[in-house]
Parts: sequence; C-alpha cells; structure tokens
Amino acid sequence: MAPGQTNKTADEQPSRKDSLIHISNPHLEHMQEDILYHFNLGTGTHDFPSMFGDVKFVCVGGSPSRMEMFTKYIARELGLGDATSDFPNICAGTDRYCMYKVGPVLSVSHGMGIPSIAIMLHELIKLLYHAKCSDVIVLRIGTSGGIGIEPGSVVITSQSVDASFRPQFEQTILGKTVVRSTDMDEELAKELLQCAKELNEFNTEIGKTMCTLDFYEGQARLDGAFCSYTEEEKLNYLKAACKAGVKNIEMESSVFAAMCKLSGLKAGVVCVTLLNRLQGDQISSPHELLVEYQQRPQKLVGHFIKKRFGKA
Amino acid sequence: MAPGQTNKTADEQPSRKDSLIHISNPHLEHMQEDILYHFNLGTGTHDFPSMFGDVKFVCVGGSPSRMEMFTKYIARELGLGDATSDFPNICAGTDRYCMYKVGPVLSVSHGMGIPSIAIMLHELIKLLYHAKCSDVIVLRIGTSGGIGIEPGSVVITSQSVDASFRPQFEQTILGKTVVRSTDMDEELAKELLQCAKELNEFNTEIGKTMCTLDFYEGQARLDGAFCSYTEEEKLNYLKAACKAGVKNIEMESSVFAAMCKLSGLKAGVVCVTLLNRLQGDQISSPHELLVEYQQRPQKLVGHFIKKRFGKA
Repeated sequence: MAPGQTNKTADEQPSRKDSLIHISNPHLEHMQEDILYHFNLGTGTHDFPSMFGDVKFVCVGGSPSRMEMFTKYIARELGLGDATSDFPNICAGTDRYCMYKVGPVLSVSHGMGIPSIAIMLHELIKLLYHAKCSDVIVLRIGTSGGIGIEPGSVVITSQSVDASFRPQFEQTILGKTVVRSTDMDEELAKELLQCAKELNEFNTEIGKTMCTLDFYEGQARLDGAFCSYTEEEKLNYLKAACKAGVKNIEMESSVFAAMCKLSGLKAGVVCVTLLNRLQGDQISSPHELLVEYQQRPQKLVGHFIKKRFGKA
Repeated sequence: MAPGQTNKTADEQPSRKDSLIHISNPHLEHMQEDILYHFNLGTGTHDFPSMFGDVKFVCVGGSPSRMEMFTKYIARELGLGDATSDFPNICAGTDRYCMYKVGPVLSVSHGMGIPSIAIMLHELIKLLYHAKCSDVIVLRIGTSGGIGIEPGSVVITSQSVDASFRPQFEQTILGKTVVRSTDMDEELAKELLQCAKELNEFNTEIGKTMCTLDFYEGQARLDGAFCSYTEEEKLNYLKAACKAGVKNIEMESSVFAAMCKLSGLKAGVVCVTLLNRLQGDQISSPHELLVEYQQRPQKLVGHFIKKRFGKA
C-alpha cells in the first residue's frame, strides 16, 4: 500500500482530487513563473514535479542542523543511505531555510516563531502544489517547555491554543483580523501515540500545545531582559494553562495547524519538553541530555514513517 | 573621543549610569548563573565583561551569512583585519543565531520575524548588561519591500507602525496585551541620513516602516498559498499605508524599537527596499542586483561607525 493512502483500489478513490494540495489563491494561475524567494527555487528555473512529485512526508523543525541530522537518520531507517551518504541542501542558494530530500521524505527547517514558519509554509505549500504532490503528511518535530510533565516527555498536539488558551490563530489581512482554526488531525495524533507505545522508550502524551509570540515575557519566564510580574503570578498563569489542558509551550504550532488545515494537508506536531516550567525557566540540563531529548521526536516520527512504509 | 560618547570630560558625565543597559527585571539579580540558551553562552561558563565589555555598536540582521560578510567588511573599513582574516562565530555551539565581533562592533543574526528577533534581543540585552557595556548603539540592517519608492532605495525608520499604521507594539504578558512605543531615536536617524548624503551612492529616505507578522497575506501579497482579496483591495491597502507615511514593510522593526527603547539602547533601522510593492509582489530582480542592494545598508552603517571613530 502506498504511504499516506488508505486501503482502496483506484476505482474506489474519487478522493484523488481531494488528496491534492488546496491552493486558495485565484491569482496564482495567472502567474507565468512563481519564485519561492526564501527557498531560492522557482517554477521557471526548477522542475518541481520531477524534483518533488514523489514527496509523501514533510518533516519540519526549527533548527537547520537538526533537520540535516533527521535526514541522515531517516535515510538509514528506510534503508536509503548510510552514515557516509551526503544529502545536499536543496536551498543551498539561501541561508533563510535549509531543505533535504531522501526518497519520499522532505525535511525543511523553519527557524523560530510564527512569522518564520509561516513564510516557509506558504512556499512549501506552493512547492507541493506545483509539484502535483498528493496524500502528503506534514509533521513538525520540535522542542518545547512542558507544564507539569517530566522533562524529556514528548507531547503530540491535539490542538494548538493561544496565550489565552483559545484554539485559534489570528491572521492579519489588509489590517483586519481573521480567525482560523488550530485543530490537529485526531486520527494522526492517535497513530503517532501508538508509535510511541510501540517504541516504549520515553513518556509520550497527547495534549494541547500553547503557541506564543515570545519566549520570555510571552511564556511567563522570570529570566528575560524584562519582567513585570511576580513568581506567584507566573505560576498562577502556568497552572491555569495546565488546567485548560495545555501540556507544553512552543512558538510555531498555531499557524502550522491553521495553514496545513487550509491546504488540506494532514498535519501533526510532535515536540519534546526540555524542562518542566513549573520547576523553572532556564534550560540548564547537560548538553548531552538535551541532545538525546531532541532525538526523541525524530525517533517517533521515524518509526511512524517506517510503519507507513511497512518497514517497521 | 570614544565612540558613542558626547564630547564631555569625565566630570561632566553624571549620565555614566544612564548610559548603561537598563534591565527591568528584579528576578535577574537573584540568579546565580544566567544561561543565554539561544546563544549557547552563560555567565557561569563565559567571562562576559572580558569578551564583550568594549562593545559600542551592535549590528543585527536576519541572515547569518550577511552578518558574517558585514563583519569582514567592517573589519576592513576600521583597519582591524583584511580579506583573509577569520572571525569565529561566538555562538558556534548553536545554529539558532550567529555572532561575530571585531573590535567594538558586535554583529548578530536574528532570523525572520518578531518572535525570532525578540528572543535574540532578550539575550543580547542581558549579554550587554552582564558585560557592563555602556553607550551602546544598536543598528538593524535589513531588507524590505518599498512602497512607492525606487527599488534599491534605503529607508531609515523614523517610527515603526503595525498593520493598521499605529506606532505601537503589542506584547502579550500572562495572556494580556501590553502596548509599547515604537519610536526610533530621531537624532540617530538624522545622523544616518547625513552619512547617506556623504556617501552619495544610492537614494536614502527617512520614513515610517510597517512591521508585519507575515510576508504574504500580512503584507497584502497576491502570490502566497492563500489570497482572499483582489488586486484592487491590495493596492488600496498599500496606498493607505503610503498616505500614512509608510515607506517600507519588513517584519522585525516594531519589537526591535520597543525593546531597545525599554533598555535605554539607542537604536536605528536601516533597510534596503528590494522591490516597489505598488509594482508587484515577487522578488524577481537578478541575483547580482539583489546582492548589491543588500550591501547598501552595510555601507551606510559602516560609514556611520567609521565617522564615530573619526576614521571617515
């Protein structure tokens, strides 16, 4: 069975069109060429269907070096390369993002914060559309701060909420606010949790993820350059988040959920928690431990992809 | 005369204390160690006063490679290195940001968007504070889209405005909105404009800069993955911005202005415009021309720093 597809024969698949990428932009069809500026790729200079047409999984994460590591890891896991294989950065002409491809798995870095991942997603969605990809699953593998759970735990996002715990993303268009849904795919979250159970290597939970525009004041940290609240106020805020079902905090999931949903892309967010914010603010664990933590979402997603390929 | 200082004797300087970095965070003084996680630097492992105590200028920009190029450029201009000089990345232990130092000039990359530059600024302000720096000027050298001005023009920001043309930055703290001023230093902007006049190499103007959370829908582009408005609505919006005094659009100036002001840091924003948004959305100029455009803010700021050192 092809990855990302349900068990149906060709005749049973009237949804082939539905499984393509949705582009809600009537202007695009009138453009002779589409330059994806921040990828340094363009439809006039690159053959997108031949470069990317077979992509079934896109894995995204903040750090460029982590995405390169993930590419080498997934290549080994899928038997598509070894430790000495080299995967060129497809976006080598720019240092805004990096991109690697191994078989049907595309890995892209997105930097930190909603605006940075939003630029990447606009261009990624157009890339998949131009390449005529279908049945694509997009997974964000990242780091986060946990609330009330053991550091090193992995959280699979059920829903992304804002700093007021509302399941929404506010997009400003022509100076006006448009509210978008941030629900994640429930079936995919369950399938990812099942993969974690099979791996049985670290604590994994499904829960809400709070997405903020700032790492310090925006996440109630006491250790930024500015802080106008007390430790008690901080803890009350984080406990209220916990009561609302929030298990971790990061900075990209809301726009990621909203944009993938608008494009008909199945999407999941898998983040490891580097610390328990009820215990502190500084990320002070030994470097080696943090490196091991950061491999956990990669392992989980790697197992998921292998399973989809019938290799796990 | 020391750079960044006015022509006064030591006795005339009761403002020495005022020229230090302001940290409005009572919690910091109780911390035994401060780990600047995204710089991979910490007060327990690095001697900040000896590493950074002499810093008088901090230049920041989105792209890591552009900041490395700027470091080499400013080294040559100040006679502190040549084309073969190598400047190590002080943040080599992480790929979140990069940082270079040549004499009193620190160069730091900040990625794209408000959240990304905000994380960097929190840690930069604490770095300068721990290093006991004084009389520091921070300059953002970046790229932008122009409104109604010739591509390649450089805009010195008088004030950063939001997508509704209001001169403010909204910071979310414990789920509540706090509004902060985004005025830039007027004297510094005039001094930078004077430098541009002396260089006389490209059109430079002082004006308002609109700072958005998104590059596509947030800047009224027609070429994103989604677009729900017509070309006429787009142009009406951009013309309204133009009428409000906006000369260019980018994605970092508002939080940059707000945070520098709160810390008592003199700050300026110098961005080149890569296109005229009234003419189009795609950045389609030849690569070589775009590279030359991107050197313009570097040249202007380089001239400014040389002048402050009496070397221009």
